[in-house]
Order: sequence, then C-alpha cells, then structure tokens
Amino acid sequence: MGSPVHRVSMGDPCSRQVHPDIESERSVQSFDVERLTNILDRGAQNTALRRKVESIIHSDPVFNLTDNYFMAQKELYEAAMQKRFHMQMLAQRLGWQEDGCELEYACRALSGSVGLGLRTVFMNALRSLGSEEQIAKWSPLCRNFQIITTYAQTELGHGTYLQGLETEATYDTATQDFVIHSPTMTATKWWPGDLGQSATHALVLAQLICSGVRRGMHAFIVPIRSLQDHTPLPGITIGNIGPKMALNNVDNGFLRLHHVRVPRENMLSRFAQVLPDGTYMRFGTAQSNYFAMVVTRVQLVAKEILPNLQKACVIAMRYSVIRRQSRLRPSDPEVKILDYQTQQQKLFPQLAMSYAFHFLAVSLSEFFELSYDSILNKDFSLLPELHALSTGAKAMTADFCTQGAEQCRRACGGHGYSELSGLPSLVTKVTASCTYEGENTVLYLQVARFLAKSYLQAQMSPGSTQQKSLPQSVAYLAKPDLSRCPAQMAADFLCPELYTTAWAHAAARLIKDAVHHVRTLEQSGVEQHEAWNQTTVIQLQAAKAHCYYITVKSFKEALEKLDNEPAIQQVLKRLCDLCALHGILTHSGDFLHDGFLSGAQVDMARTAYLDLLSLIRKDAILLTDAFDFTDQCLNSALGCYDGNVYERLFQWAQKAPVNTQENSAYEKYIRPLLQRSNL
Amino acid sequence: MGSPVHRVSMGDPCSRQVHPDIESERSVQSFDVERLTNILDRGAQNTALRRKVESIIHSDPVFNLTDNYFMAQKELYEAAMQKRFHMQMLAQRLGWQEDGCELEYACRALSGSVGLGLRTVFMNALRSLGSEEQIAKWSPLCRNFQIITTYAQTELGHGTYLQGLETEATYDTATQDFVIHSPTMTATKWWPGDLGQSATHALVLAQLICSGVRRGMHAFIVPIRSLQDHTPLPGITIGNIGPKMALNNVDNGFLRLHHVRVPRENMLSRFAQVLPDGTYMRFGTAQSNYFAMVVTRVQLVAKEILPNLQKACVIAMRYSVIRRQSRLRPSDPEVKILDYQTQQQKLFPQLAMSYAFHFLAVSLSEFFELSYDSILNKDFSLLPELHALSTGAKAMTADFCTQGAEQCRRACGGHGYSELSGLPSLVTKVTASCTYEGENTVLYLQVARFLAKSYLQAQMSPGSTQQKSLPQSVAYLAKPDLSRCPAQMAADFLCPELYTTAWAHAAARLIKDAVHHVRTLEQSGVEQHEAWNQTTVIQLQAAKAHCYYITVKSFKEALEKLDNEPAIQQVLKRLCDLCALHGILTHSGDFLHDGFLSGAQVDMARTAYLDLLSLIRKDAILLTDAFDFTDQCLNSALGCYDGNVYERLFQWAQKAPVNTQENSAYEKYIRPLLQRSNL
Repeated sequence: MGSPVHRVSMGDPCSRQVHPDIESERSVQSFDVERLTNILDRGAQNTALRRKVESIIHSDPVFNLTDNYFMAQKELYEAAMQKRFHMQMLAQRLGWQEDGCELEYACRALSGSVGLGLRTVFMNALRSLGSEEQIAKWSPLCRNFQIITTYAQTELGHGTYLQGLETEATYDTATQDFVIHSPTMTATKWWPGDLGQSATHALVLAQLICSGVRRGMHAFIVPIRSLQDHTPLPGITIGNIGPKMALNNVDNGFLRLHHVRVPRENMLSRFAQVLPDGTYMRFGTAQSNYFAMVVTRVQLVAKEILPNLQKACVIAMRYSVIRRQSRLRPSDPEVKILDYQTQQQKLFPQLAMSYAFHFLAVSLSEFFELSYDSILNKDFSLLPELHALSTGAKAMTADFCTQGAEQCRRACGGHGYSELSGLPSLVTKVTASCTYEGENTVLYLQVARFLAKSYLQAQMSPGSTQQKSLPQSVAYLAKPDLSRCPAQMAADFLCPELYTTAWAHAAARLIKDAVHHVRTLEQSGVEQHEAWNQTTVIQLQAAKAHCYYITVKSFKEALEKLDNEPAIQQVLKRLCDLCALHGILTHSGDFLHDGFLSGAQVDMARTAYLDLLSLIRKDAILLTDAFDFTDQCLNSALGCYDGNVYERLFQWAQKAPVNTQENSAYEKYIRPLLQRSNL
Repeated sequence: MGSPVHRVSMGDPCSRQVHPDIESERSVQSFDVERLTNILDRGAQNTALRRKVESIIHSDPVFNLTDNYFMAQKELYEAAMQKRFHMQMLAQRLGWQEDGCELEYACRALSGSVGLGLRTVFMNALRSLGSEEQIAKWSPLCRNFQIITTYAQTELGHGTYLQGLETEATYDTATQDFVIHSPTMTATKWWPGDLGQSATHALVLAQLICSGVRRGMHAFIVPIRSLQDHTPLPGITIGNIGPKMALNNVDNGFLRLHHVRVPRENMLSRFAQVLPDGTYMRFGTAQSNYFAMVVTRVQLVAKEILPNLQKACVIAMRYSVIRRQSRLRPSDPEVKILDYQTQQQKLFPQLAMSYAFHFLAVSLSEFFELSYDSILNKDFSLLPELHALSTGAKAMTADFCTQGAEQCRRACGGHGYSELSGLPSLVTKVTASCTYEGENTVLYLQVARFLAKSYLQAQMSPGSTQQKSLPQSVAYLAKPDLSRCPAQMAADFLCPELYTTAWAHAAARLIKDAVHHVRTLEQSGVEQHEAWNQTTVIQLQAAKAHCYYITVKSFKEALEKLDNEPAIQQVLKRLCDLCALHGILTHSGDFLHDGFLSGAQVDMARTAYLDLLSLIRKDAILLTDAFDFTDQCLNSALGCYDGNVYERLFQWAQKAPVNTQENSAYEKYIRPLLQRSNL
C-alpha cells in the first residue's frame, strides 16, 4: 500500500485497500508532502510529537469518536466528561505538562470532544487580569482540576454591550466582601461553557459598585458549587441552557446569583483594585478588562475556527476524486467530479483560504507574542493594533470558514447532508464562531473605527511623527496610490505585488469613502452617533476589504520566506494567487467602481483564475493530505485517507439506533393505519 | 390585549401580556395587515379555512411540537408517525378530502413534522408517468394508506446523472415479469424518504432491459414489505441511512434488490410500454420520465423551501424589537437592535426575498397549471420553458432561502444558536433543498443550456418565426438593449421599469459572454463537452443573473395587479425595490463591467437602498405578522407573537433532559477528577 501508517484507520475493516482513484492522485508528487506538513506544524519535531500523541490517543477505545453521531445532548456531555477524565489520567501517567504541546495535540486529535475546555478561557483571563499573587494562588488549582472553572460574562439580556451587563458586585466595607447579585431575570448569566452541570468556580464579570459609585465591569472569582457534593452553593441557581445547533458536548449553562458574598481578594486586580476601606484604584485604561478577550480571540483562530474548514476541505476533496458523475464523451468512463470546473470553483478557493488563514494565524500570533508582555506591564501602545488585527482576523476567519465549510458540505451532494460524512457537524460547529467571543458585525465595526482613525492619521503631513507612527498593518493608507491597475494580460494577475496593491487600493478607497460619508452627515447636522449608524453598511464593507488585504499580504509574506523550498513555494503561490483573485472576482464591483480595474482587466483576472483551477487540480489531494488529519479525528465516512467511501457509509449506517433497535412505531401507528384502511 | 387570538399561544403562561416593545410596533399600521394575509393566502376564505384547521390542530396535544428539540432520531421518527396516524384519523372523522386544502393547512401548521410525506412524490410520479388504468388502480390504495409508498431513485453511487443509475429491470418474456436487481453495492437505493422503516411499496427507478437492449430509466412499482407483518419481502434488504443534519423525522432509507420480480403491469406506462412479447414502445420523448421531477419541484418552492425563510424572518424580526443593545446617546435607553442599519441590512433583504419568492412561486404555479395538461397529452412544446423556470426557481429559492435563514439566525446573536430559538432547525432543514430534487449547480447549468439555446434563437433575423416563438421568460434577449442606464439620481433607482431593465441587461450580457466563450473554445479546436466544462463558471453566473431577473420581474408584475390596494402596493413596492437594489449592489461588478452603470450610479443605488431600509423599518413587524404563522408552528422561544422572549427561553431550557434528569457524569468522572487532584 505504501501509505503512511499514521493516516490510516487502525483496525478498520474498510481500510484493507486504498481506492485506486485516490491512489492515482498521489502517484505523482510535485512537492514533498511531508515537508509541507512540517512547515504547517512549524517544525518536523512537532510533527513527530503530534503523531506520537495521536497514536496514543487513537489506540485507546475510550477516545473513540464513532458513536458521537448517534448521541443526544446528555450522552454527548457524559462522553466528553469521560474523555476529559481519562485524558487527565493519561497526562499524569505519561508526565504531560499542563502547558505542553502533548495535551494540545491530544485535544486536536479529539476534535474538541473533550469536556472542561473553558478553563483555558479562565486561565487567559486570570493571567491577563489577575495580580501575581492571584495567579500564584488560583492557577495551580485550576490547572490540576482541584477546582473546575468557567468564565461567566454573557447574560440572558446582554452580550455585545458589556457596559450594559446587569450583574452587580457591590463592595461592603463592613465585611470587606463583594456582594454579587443578579438584579433581574435578564441579568442571568447565560451561555458560559462548562457551567450548567460541571463548574465549581466561575469568573463572573460584573459591574463594580464601590461607595455607591459604578466603576464598570470587573472580574470576580465566585465559588458556585460545593467541592464536597457538587450541589449549588447558597444563593446560586444554575442549570444547562438546553440543546444547541451543535457543541452539545459543551455544557453551556445559566447562573443566577442572589446576594452571593466573595472576599475582597477575589476581584482580579492587575489593572484595578478596591482597598479595604472601599477606595477604588485603577492602573490600566478603562479598556484593560477587555484584554482577556483579545488573548482568547487570538487562540481561537488557529485552534477552534480554522481546523473546521481544513477538515471540510480534506473530506470534500477526497470524496470528489472517488465520486464519479456523467460522461464528458459517451465512450469514456464517468468523470471524477473534481474534474468539473464548477466543483473546482467550489473547493479550491476553500483550500486556498485554509492555507491563507494558517499563515494569517501565524503572523497574528507572532504579533501577539511581541506585544503581550508589554501590555501586561501596562504599556498599551500596541493594544489598538493588536485589538484591530485580532478582531478582524477572528471575524474574517469565522465568516469564511463557515461559508467555506458549508460550501464543501454541499459540494458532496446528498451524502454531505448525512451526519456520517462529518460535514454537518463541522458546519454547525464553526458557524457558532461567527457569534461567540465577539459578534462578527460588531467586530468588523471595531476594525472600521480603527481604520477611520488611522486614515485621519495618515492624512497628516507626509513625514510627520504622527504619520510615521502609523501602525504597520495600515501603513498602506499613507502610501502613494495608483489610480489604474497596470495589468495588461491575464498573467500579470499572477504577480503578488500587483494583487496585493489592488487590494490595498480597494480597501483605502472604501475607507476614504466611509470616512467621507460620516463627515458629510456630521457637517449636515446629524449627531455623531447617528452619523456613524447611518454609515455602518459602508463601514462594514471597508473593514472587510481591509481584512482581505491583510490576509493576502500575510500569505504573500509567508511565501517570501519559503525561498529555500521552491517546489512548495510554487504550489502555495498558486493558492495565494487564487485567494487574491477569487476575492477580486467576487467583489469586482469594488475594483471597477473608480476605474482601478477595467471590465477587460476583470476578464483577464478571470482567465488567470480559471487557469489556476486546472493547475491546482493535480495537487489538490496532496495539499489536503498535508494537513495530516487522522481518519479518527476526521470521523468521516466520506473523508478517510483510503477513499473507501461507499463501504464505510453503508457500514456506519447499520450502527444507527434506528437500525439496531426495534421499530416501536410499527405496532403503535403503522399497523393500525394500514389495517384501518384495509378493512 | 387586542391581539388576534389565533396568533397567540394557547394556554402559554408566558403569554399573559404582549411585550410593550412589540406592541408599539403594531400601534400605527400604514396598511391593512389582515388584507395582506388574505392576498398571501390567495383569498380571504382560504385564510379563514386555514385558521380553522390550525385551531383544530393546535388544540390537540398529540400535535404539540415543543418536545421536538429534545428528541433523537428514533424518537423524532416515532413522533412523526404518531402525528400522521392521528392526522388521518382526524381527516376521516372531519371528512377532510385527501386532495383538499385542510390536510395541506394541517401539514403547514405542523411544519413538516408529519411522517409519510413521500406519498406526494409517489402520487406526482404516478399521475405524470402512469397510464389511466395504473392511476385508477394505485392512486386510491396510496391515498387511503392501504399501502405506504415511496419514490426510490437516488442510489449510493449515483444521484444527478440518471443515466448512470445501476439498478436494472430486466424483462423476462417467459414469465412476463420484470426482474429488479441491484448489481453492485453502489446500486443500493439510498436516501428515499419513508423507506427505511415504513414503506410497503416503492416506485423504483431502474434501467429497463428488454430483449437484451438497454432502454434507459423507467419507473416500477415494487412491493417491498409484507402487508401482514411489515417484514421485508424476499430479496429485499432495507434500513435507515442514519442521522442527518436535520429532517431526522423523515425516515430516509436504503434498499437493495436481489432479483425481485414484479408483473409487467407494474411499469408505469404513460410514455413507454413493454408488450407481453418484450417489444418496447415509446410514446413520449426520452426526457418524459423526468417530467415527474418537474411537478415535484414546482410544489417544493412554495411548500418546502420558502416557508423556512419566512419563519426565520418572523423570528428574527420579532426578537430584534425586543433585544436592546448599546446607547446611541449616553442619556438614552438602550436601542432596539432593529434600529441599527447593519441589522436592517441583515434582515430586510430577507424579508424582501420572502415576498419576492412568494410571487415567483405563484407565477410559476400559474405557468405550471397552464402547461401540465398539454404535456400529459403528449404536447411537449411548453416543457423546455417549464423545465427552465422550475429548475431556476428551485435553485434560486433554495440558495437564497438557505443563506437568508442563516443570516436571520446569526442576526439573533448567541440566542440564534439555541435550538429553542427555532432557527437552527430552519437552517439545517432548508439547506437540504440545495441538494435534493436536483443539485443546485446542476440545475443552474440546465438553465444555462436553455439560455444559450434561447440566445441563439434570439439572434435570428428580427421578426422571423423562430425569434417570435422565443419563450416569454427570455423574450428580453430579443429586445433592443440600452448600453447605459439613464438614472441621474438616487430616486431614479426606485423605478421598477429601470431596475428590471438593468437586470435584463446584465443577464443578457452575461449570457452573450458565456455563449461567446464556448464558441471561441470550440473554434480553437476544443471538443464540445470540454468547451462546455471550461466555461461552466461563466455559465453559472449567467444563469443566476437570469433567475434574479425573473424574480424581480415577477414581483414587479404582481405589484401591477395590486392597483386597487394602494397602501399594500406601496409597502410591497419598497420590498420589490429593495430586492432589486440589494442584488445590484451585491453584484455591482456585473453592472459596472461594461459601463452600464457608472461608479456614481452605483453610489446612487446605494443611497436609494439605504433610504429604503429606514422606510421599511416602521412596517417590518407588520410585514412579518402578515405571514400569519401561529406560535405553535414557529415553535420558537424568540419568535412568539407576544414578544416575551426571555421568559420563554428560560422556561423552555428548564425542560431539557440535561436539567430534568440526574447528572450521571458527576459520580463517574467529575468527583474522581476533583478528588484525585485534591488528595
């Protein structure tokens, strides 16, 4: 067979032979797939470690995922808790560190089906907002599961508008306690993961009231369940919020607090503190309490959002070389559906975005590492740009990965609608990311505010300090602009400099247009807030174009670093080209509007784009193989490495409870119906 | 309260009072909502009958839908069978006719949660493809549930390409039987509804083999289960295909046939027949066996696809006047989220499409009624246009309703992700329609072929018979074309003639472009099939623009018939304008490409569009009320008529099994985890 053993389902009776239609796709390799995997893993040693962890996880039946598709919410929760328990036992036995890569790889191998993941969010908040003493006290408790933690911010009646959160934390000087209270039904905390049936401690975000003055949102560690018997503590009403579109293994819950007291030390106090006498002291900006969300958002892109699109690509691509449909010529065999231009147009842009977002996530995390420590040390100079980059990246990846995963799902026709394909759960999972941790439209509008400010800064006199200090991601706003694209033939559109410049031009024009509209409205007497609201549709368009530019630019820059890997550089460059051109063609109006592109140039771009589709075709399977997802992690009857699609679909269906259990509807309804009629 | 009693949940403790934030939306009515409902129902007497049926259905606890969100596949199936059984008993008791409106309204009230719906598809096929004798024999058996029927076309390995279906029906002259057989695993019938555990008879689509000659796909009535004890008949292997993204109440199944014999009379023989001696006779075209699918597609648009978008609009709109978020001015109360321009941009185009597609479905069904009888009588002259109109309408409504329902879902933020909002199930249900009964891309490409042919016909000499006989839906291809849009200010874009012409122009240009590309390739020596494949991305774009044009045009024509209802005409015209302009703005490149619109004109269109948003705002709730869905049918914690969102969400969540049953994960995993760590 010759296929890498780590990729093939172990002990799977369907895996006796690799399907010739997928084997032929791997027979000629224009680049070293293993080397590309190493690049994606950021080092060959990481690839090796990851595979070692995967083989440990997949050899343990406790971590099997195949029954997930037959489980209801309650069973999914229990299975997730079981996996968490066993993973911690495994980690202890094998000496895996809490912050080490092994646990991360183990979670990746289990596609998020492990319970108690919210402690990461708790830890992010603790590290970002807690004092050194608080970190020293709570961090080990949380890491070692001496307590089970969650992060309780969103309320039944409030999500986005944090200032509107109703939960109150009133400082009582007499007892030096905070009294945490939900004054209304809509103040009920709603959505926190691991809260409904699991957590013992919640980091509760609440309005601090000190000596009668409201001081805005702060974070408080609140014990909510007994460590002895897990019952809710006095004043706590708690439960699960019910079934969701997906993520039913995550125990999202609700929490009402009735005058619950916690000691003064439980308010996280890196950026603000309440002294025993009730004096309030602030060390950071008013926004510093939002910093924890930035940290979480940066992690989300690479770990929670992007893998869904990558997996959907793997599944759809593999299925598309097994599925055959119609004959191009009557005498020929039926054609692999991946040979159809429309199928390529559905899948290859998704593949290109999968790579583009990988490199975007890498550059975002590099910028994050650069700025995190200085922010912790209360130097906030890089925070606005970090905020804009992370919100933009989160919004754009969530949008595109959701749309892309659904596109991949539909590209598999009817079988893509079966849960057993693995695709529906990827789609319903990733679409949550458009809303959680910052609703996408709200995030784009935050980017738009940053862009508007940067635009005004860029208009300062050339060479001035202010103009020079323009954040690097918006430096293009100060650069001289071409008014016409110089492309003269299709091949010109394969120049990264050309299409990056085109995106910069479109983004800059839209930002200028948006700023101009606000200004015009304000000058005509419309109030500032209202002027903003009346232009948000335009602002949104500008922010999206900017995010697309950032994505193309980071892909281009990643390619430049691959000069010593020419074969890989070449295949990835095609994806980068496709990413840029797909965007230009789907938003051609933005480029034609001011004549930057002519109609003839758009046609050239389209020619270049269609040519790319057929060039990428021959590497498509290898480019998805390079993501190196195990069959167990994909958990898809359509997407296994060996291509044995139909056998697996047939066999997996037999295991559904509707087939293994008796049809109780027959005696109750079908027989009476038939007999009534046949009397 | 004053709200129509039929709209309010009966006996719902949350419904004591209508929320003032939604009551205020209804206090000023610029048009008669009841009258609009009557128009949508196509007559006040229909509205009355529908409400009567709804009140019967909703007063019977058997038809309650509230527990659906807590059920797994097996329970959903059983509940659907229970509802079907009780509905037939009810129909018998109340004397509802099988073809009458009552049963249709009852099904609407139950949002498709009734089992055994596939018999409609069986009946469509029987009526379209069966001889009069066959109809007389099988129709009453099917109607009265003396047999339970399904339609078995799709196979594990083939869907779209019907010629590739592998199931064989070989005529045996000796016994005058057909031998129906699945020669391979991929020949297994896969997907037919009601098949897995319910049906007793399947209409099996199979390759007819007569005297050794393959005659293409024909339809055969095959008994598959014993009418005595429901066991599979000899040679039949049968079961359910397992869990799906949604529609788990529909018993989609698989079927393998091992040399199963059925009598010669069981082949449907309106258009083709096998004589006792094996002589094959054809009375229709080769395509006539596809006719049954056209019938089903026409019904789908109005009954299966569109209601999902309409309901999503109702839910999201009502939630958006209850949900408040942020202050525009510090001293003001928080704003209803429907007052944000971005929220309006998310929801109002969906509302506009909901109405546009209603009128599209009406005009499609009128054209269908016009042409059905003549086709049955073997006059196929209108079939190509009926085929193009129905495939285009199905593809476009499925696409837009899916995208629109998901847009509405996301517009409800986190709560839209809760199953209890009703939105996830609308999205996951409607997205199936992009694939079933003809995959959308394939359908669009069939439209494109029709357009290419029509374009060539339109190029014939003006006034010639051929040009005159151009189907009415493509008559625009022969009309003289404007090369520039005459609009000079934003208000010009509110002229239906202007924007319909703009859509016709864009569609005609793209069709011309597509035809030109195929021709160029062919002239350069590329084979015909390959030339088509290499231009399908362009063909697709052309077909979509044409479908958009048809939609705008049918909306415009429906408005023209409302001259005696000026108030309703006015509000609906705004939606028609919005529908046309939203499409122009999202595809502005198609209008800028050849200079038909200038950048300045696109800006004017945008101004007109943004102004429409605020005009539609005040009627938004009334326009969704007019759909007149009952609370029980919406089954949404967010979308009830009374606006009591938070109470309902809180109360419904308490009923989830995770909350009503014990947490078995505590003793097994949580306690050991905490105690291990706390040792």
